[in-house]
Amino acid sequence: MQCFKTIEYLKNSYGERISQIADQRRSGKKLVGTFCLFVPDEIIFAAGADRVILCGGKNDTVSIAEQYLPRNICPLVKSSFGSIVNNGCSGIRSCSHFSMVDMIVAENTCDSKKKMYELLGEYVPTYVIDLPQKPDTPEALKYFLSELEKFRGVMEQLTGNKVTTEGLRQEIRSSNETRRLFHRLYELRKEDPSPISGSQVLKILQKQYFLSPDKLKEYLRMLIEEVESVEPGQVRKPRIMVSGCPMPGGNTKVTDIIESRGGVIVAEESCTGTRSFWYLVDEDKDPMTALAERYIKIPCSCMSPNDRRIDNILELAREFRVDGVIHYTLQFCHGYNIEKQKVQKALKEAGIPMLSIETDYSDSDVEQIGLRVDAFMEMIS
Amino acid sequence: MQCFKTIEYLKNSYGERISQIADQRRSGKKLVGTFCLFVPDEIIFAAGADRVILCGGKNDTVSIAEQYLPRNICPLVKSSFGSIVNNGCSGIRSCSHFSMVDMIVAENTCDSKKKMYELLGEYVPTYVIDLPQKPDTPEALKYFLSELEKFRGVMEQLTGNKVTTEGLRQEIRSSNETRRLFHRLYELRKEDPSPISGSQVLKILQKQYFLSPDKLKEYLRMLIEEVESVEPGQVRKPRIMVSGCPMPGGNTKVTDIIESRGGVIVAEESCTGTRSFWYLVDEDKDPMTALAERYIKIPCSCMSPNDRRIDNILELAREFRVDGVIHYTLQFCHGYNIEKQKVQKALKEAGIPMLSIETDYSDSDVEQIGLRVDAFMEMIS
Repeated sequence: MQCFKTIEYLKNSYGERISQIADQRRSGKKLVGTFCLFVPDEIIFAAGADRVILCGGKNDTVSIAEQYLPRNICPLVKSSFGSIVNNGCSGIRSCSHFSMVDMIVAENTCDSKKKMYELLGEYVPTYVIDLPQKPDTPEALKYFLSELEKFRGVMEQLTGNKVTTEGLRQEIRSSNETRRLFHRLYELRKEDPSPISGSQVLKILQKQYFLSPDKLKEYLRMLIEEVESVEPGQVRKPRIMVSGCPMPGGNTKVTDIIESRGGVIVAEESCTGTRSFWYLVDEDKDPMTALAERYIKIPCSCMSPNDRRIDNILELAREFRVDGVIHYTLQFCHGYNIEKQKVQKALKEAGIPMLSIETDYSDSDVEQIGLRVDAFMEMIS
Repeated sequence: MQCFKTIEYLKNSYGERISQIADQRRSGKKLVGTFCLFVPDEIIFAAGADRVILCGGKNDTVSIAEQYLPRNICPLVKSSFGSIVNNGCSGIRSCSHFSMVDMIVAENTCDSKKKMYELLGEYVPTYVIDLPQKPDTPEALKYFLSELEKFRGVMEQLTGNKVTTEGLRQEIRSSNETRRLFHRLYELRKEDPSPISGSQVLKILQKQYFLSPDKLKEYLRMLIEEVESVEPGQVRKPRIMVSGCPMPGGNTKVTDIIESRGGVIVAEESCTGTRSFWYLVDEDKDPMTALAERYIKIPCSCMSPNDRRIDNILELAREFRVDGVIHYTLQFCHGYNIEKQKVQKALKEAGIPMLSIETDYSDSDVEQIGLRVDAFMEMIS
């Protein structure tokens, strides 16, 4: 697979972004930390604050969290918590941005995150947006809108800036532009063979909520240009869609296994994937309503029923002409783990093979998963 | 500990209740199955339907559920699902009432239940009430009220009966009467030594949502009368409060261990305990508003923040003069498991010892838990 300069730049983008954040903080700009796609960036940016994602993908900080949290909860929650409460005494380094946020804005999605946020409040000021769990009723939308309005007030208070309708419209246009760029990038992955690997795309997906919006767009445009100029390949590989839990920065385990075993990932139905950009915000509506409508549609397994996800998986599988789906669940993530039944049934009816992987961030099962992936590749090749 | 005739009657009440339900169904009365305290009985009864609880406490049906659900989720969810989908082919018997319900009314509380309900819909008509997860905002109350109004409509449609304001008021008075009887029973447990064991009280707690309201009141009155006439005991035992997950019918494991190791349970901060009756419904308000206000206050760990539970634990520990708290979590119940940190901290500050038990429905760890309980008893005696 061809190498892309943009991916190399991305790998080295951390330090530059940290300097930018440090400079901004010195000049009084606030930094908000988020964990989840359900928190609308547009409101944070319209208040004049910056934002970084705090979802942890590193295995090192899991053991720190296990001093406070049960062991048998999801590694993402443990890694994130460990990164924030890590005071350095353990000898384990957390990424710098974890300690730089002025406020965490969280949301009620899954049980573990929800309860972890309560403990987090003792370390960093934490504001939680409540989320109705039924995505398709007018009353749920109204409740979510009221929660976003409160959040808007919290951002105004944090920054001392007014969040104006015009400011929101501008940020919506900006975020939609990013989303359109992701759509363009994904469009290129529909070619067969795909001109870019999943491991490469994952790099930019993982950085999307870490970089500033402008820098992200710049990288996306550069990458698209590079990918567009790739000569059509000859060697066809099994086309895989990964569907399920996110892979936050630091965690590339399943992607690496799949692509080192001969497959190529052409789509990720995941929060580090299509869920982050698939739906655009309506630019013609009242901005707060448009935001509520768009964000409540994110097909996270916390929603019930979550038929939108099933439909989306089938749509993606068709559009990206996948040979198979690898359903990826982080250990003890009850939501995606139980929802897997519905995904499996829908894919079976559509004649698309599926392999299910449940894992954590450790290396202990890499070989075992590899063998299962080998068998799956053989079956679908 | 003295035996009570009421408890013996209760043990044999199953057949009579099943006959009653069968008769009612023949005459057209509908039967609703529920899983959770958040579904207001008053609305079901005001619609002229009857209600039984479907939470499973039996270990036998867990293996049936594991054909459909992940193994690493809570035993209560697996046992309940297994009891309902069990078609008898397995040779395992489910209780008769699981197959008699016309409709299941569920609620969005924890991840596992929420996603299990989606699968359940394929076996029994299932209606889900959404539940905001922030218990103390006017907007959350408004959203919950709108969900209860919809539920009221669903009940009217199921039964063909109108749910009137007067009907609701009557059911609220009736349910409050039951709650007051439970308060009276618990009041007697404040005596030292307690005149009744936790194992005995658990029998009536487990049956409270299975029996008809009238029969439950009858049993409660009989039991109170019996307990009131117990001669004051001489042998003092360590007074234990169990706090955490529910113990549905079929599951008496932790209670049995504690009381066979020399303790006496004097209070249960649990859904099979105080959470079911502690708060009354305001009889003077608009009944639907009063129901929403009362039910949203149930301090389940699905609520965030759930300070009401912490306050309630401290209040109960004081009122019931407990020597120690045993925090009981069903395996993989992330909510109670993570919230345990806050409970532990609060109890430590109050100088009340706590032992934490995480277990499932199997017998494999009975001896091990017993040894830990022994050590705890020694410490607090």
